[in-house]
Amino acid sequence: MSKQTLDPAGTVECCAPLARAPLSDAGAEDLAPLFKAVADPMRLRLLSLIACHEGGESCVCDLTDAFDVTAPTISYHLRILREAGLISAERRGTWVYYRVNPPVMTRMSAVLEPRAALAPVAG
Amino acid sequence: MSKQTLDPAGTVECCAPLARAPLSDAGAEDLAPLFKAVADPMRLRLLSLIACHEGGESCVCDLTDAFDVTAPTISYHLRILREAGLISAERRGTWVYYRVNPPVMTRMSAVLEPRAALAPVAG
Repeated sequence: MSKQTLDPAGTVECCAPLARAPLSDAGAEDLAPLFKAVADPMRLRLLSLIACHEGGESCVCDLTDAFDVTAPTISYHLRILREAGLISAERRGTWVYYRVNPPVMTRMSAVLEPRAALAPVAG
Repeated sequence: MSKQTLDPAGTVECCAPLARAPLSDAGAEDLAPLFKAVADPMRLRLLSLIACHEGGESCVCDLTDAFDVTAPTISYHLRILREAGLISAERRGTWVYYRVNPPVMTRMSAVLEPRAALAPVAG
């Protein structure tokens, strides 16, 4: 079990694209758990539903209806996303509300950006 | 073992950010193996080394020196990246040359882009 080192408040450093400078050992170790968290179809759909929901946040009650699985299964996948720092959770009254952590998604998106120079070269 | 459905030539459709419209079942099933391929520190570093190498391509001989692991381990990870469609391989003479597949990386990068509306709303 790798320890999650991201600040849950989302104050992660943003990475240069991996195509611009070789990733360090530490950088790769830090990024791999983020990609592992989204390497699952249900977690990708959960992340998308949360991100697309009105106000950018979803109650768990909004999410369970979208899937044909039990509530504990949904909770398990939400916990993985939360532990990786991709979403945050806040209890308000009866329900827990989930919200995407944009700086973490920006970091993951930025690191995968290919640079223009990657296009095939002539000759 | 999931079947890889990406066209190896890289003519994948580019995805809208998952924060713009809820991902479909099929879209999530298609994307998850791509993120699984980069959910490993060594594969992230290999991808970065290939992408950063002069001309955007690397001989396997350029890659083995960067890691303290055996050649079969490198080959194993390169095969996973290739089977996922993230890199392509071409034999020229004695060596196999690897090149990043920019449309696949663009697709992965684009799908993770958070939209501005995800920032916390006032009130």
